[in-house]
Amino acid sequence: MKIALDVMGGDNAPYSTVEGGVDALKESDGLFIYFVGPSSQIKEKLDAIDVEKYKERFEIVDAPQVITNDEKPVEAIRKKKDSSLVKAVSLVKDKKADTVVTAGSTGAFMAAGYFILRRIKGIDRPALAPIFPSAGGYTIVLDVGSNMDAKPEHLLQYAKMGSIYAKGVFGISEPSVGLLNVGTEEGKGNELTKKAYELIKECDEINFMGNIEARDVPGGKVDVVVCDGFVGNVMLKFMEGAASFIFSSLKEEITKNFSRKIGAVMLKSAFTDFAKQMDYTEHGGAPLLGVKGALIKSHGSSDAKAIKNAILKQGKGLIESKVLDQFSDGI
Amino acid sequence: MKIALDVMGGDNAPYSTVEGGVDALKESDGLFIYFVGPSSQIKEKLDAIDVEKYKERFEIVDAPQVITNDEKPVEAIRKKKDSSLVKAVSLVKDKKADTVVTAGSTGAFMAAGYFILRRIKGIDRPALAPIFPSAGGYTIVLDVGSNMDAKPEHLLQYAKMGSIYAKGVFGISEPSVGLLNVGTEEGKGNELTKKAYELIKECDEINFMGNIEARDVPGGKVDVVVCDGFVGNVMLKFMEGAASFIFSSLKEEITKNFSRKIGAVMLKSAFTDFAKQMDYTEHGGAPLLGVKGALIKSHGSSDAKAIKNAILKQGKGLIESKVLDQFSDGI
Repeated sequence: MKIALDVMGGDNAPYSTVEGGVDALKESDGLFIYFVGPSSQIKEKLDAIDVEKYKERFEIVDAPQVITNDEKPVEAIRKKKDSSLVKAVSLVKDKKADTVVTAGSTGAFMAAGYFILRRIKGIDRPALAPIFPSAGGYTIVLDVGSNMDAKPEHLLQYAKMGSIYAKGVFGISEPSVGLLNVGTEEGKGNELTKKAYELIKECDEINFMGNIEARDVPGGKVDVVVCDGFVGNVMLKFMEGAASFIFSSLKEEITKNFSRKIGAVMLKSAFTDFAKQMDYTEHGGAPLLGVKGALIKSHGSSDAKAIKNAILKQGKGLIESKVLDQFSDGI
Repeated sequence: MKIALDVMGGDNAPYSTVEGGVDALKESDGLFIYFVGPSSQIKEKLDAIDVEKYKERFEIVDAPQVITNDEKPVEAIRKKKDSSLVKAVSLVKDKKADTVVTAGSTGAFMAAGYFILRRIKGIDRPALAPIFPSAGGYTIVLDVGSNMDAKPEHLLQYAKMGSIYAKGVFGISEPSVGLLNVGTEEGKGNELTKKAYELIKECDEINFMGNIEARDVPGGKVDVVVCDGFVGNVMLKFMEGAASFIFSSLKEEITKNFSRKIGAVMLKSAFTDFAKQMDYTEHGGAPLLGVKGALIKSHGSSDAKAIKNAILKQGKGLIESKVLDQFSDGI
């Protein structure tokens, strides 16, 4: 498996990103990595780590330009041909790499999928499909921001892609699919969800559980949740904000006085395990489903571990399961 | 102040609801309560509590019918004239009570506001405006489900109502207002938010902070968050589900072995304080803003304390601040 790693994306680029790539090389013998970014910085980091024994399994691809979060995605993709993102995605387009991992601008990431790789036939809108921690372990949600004004038929396509993805990558035999809505009864919701419900219900390939409410996402009621990109984005970012608020409130409470501090020390391992369970970086980023090639978006604040997980969990899963081929056959 | 309390709404009706009403009578001398519901059940509960000294300050209004969550809201409101909800709301319409508190069906609650009290002039769609716990203490969000397919001008009206409400009831001198979106830059979002941004920006009465992201809601970045009812409902229910998931995961971790259990005992008061901070029932329910009269929806699982808070915090605040009069003048 060959990965094109955009080393310039995210808050911890390029050093932690390069480190995450090397960690992935250490753990997976069959892996080859293109480190894509400014070659001097990549070399500097690789020289600092001992990579001698992996030297046959990586290559540096010089890409001196960087696309930032502030740039207009489509314009940036078109103008910055020497950016790490465009060069990494082009490696997939040219069949030199199987997949791209990036922690950079989500907008540019989606634009690159759309305009460089292009859509798979039968899919009108690609969908970004991250994993939410939930009572069932995890819940796949799509879309969370690729398509802001989804139409009912887009939600049907998400339901199909989500099913194939959950089955192929996560090994769930008949993934249950829920339509995110404001109530569970048929007929609830806005114009979009009312029409989408009818379409999804009619589709035999989908194990459709009907409407679900947002509380059922962390509740783990279904394997795959389908919603429009605006709503999914709100839910994803609310989760991040709520987790951060909850952790800081909890930390403040448990360190307020001496006896609480002792209790907190005794519970340190419990808090670590708890934090790990809530940590979405454990699952290694979100794929953009529906484009001709595997593109994986890792969180902007990804550290080396998150990058490694994006490569070894998501990247490997997407490639080995061949779900992208199934999209074009099945949709 | 006179409150019409629908004792039949919610999971803990009627006994905890009646108890919450009595607790409110104990704490507030100027309060009068109509207990609206099946009189025999109300009497039974009141007889069990010692209410002799408050007997001048309450009245039982017999309402033998009950509207359940499963009924179609508009139909239920029209057909069940002897239901506790319809009778309670009618007391406000007839100027006998200042406000209604109910923990019953949200749909029926909104329908009662819409069809019995009617809209305030200048407001096309009423909005349900609960409080989210946040790093700033609390954040008011509207709408969370009254209006499923909001138009840009509705969001403008929410921004105006939210500002007047935050100022009048919570004493915030110049409430900051944020438009919920998928990014903070102008021009981000779906068709609705792009147009709403333009309208709100042009309005001098609103202290508009531009777009905010969902992570800024628990982050407490602004006082008032404006969004369409579908998105707000998803956020509200996601918060509930996430809180429940987080508490159960945390509980599981801290009771996994003996030493953790000891630590957990030492942190008991910390966990209690933490839970209180996260507990939205502390704030006492959500008003339906934009109808001719004060209607307060308490959570379906409200206990006596939540009902008391809905009466003493939300109810009192709405009435004493006269914000409803300001809506008709200011919008």
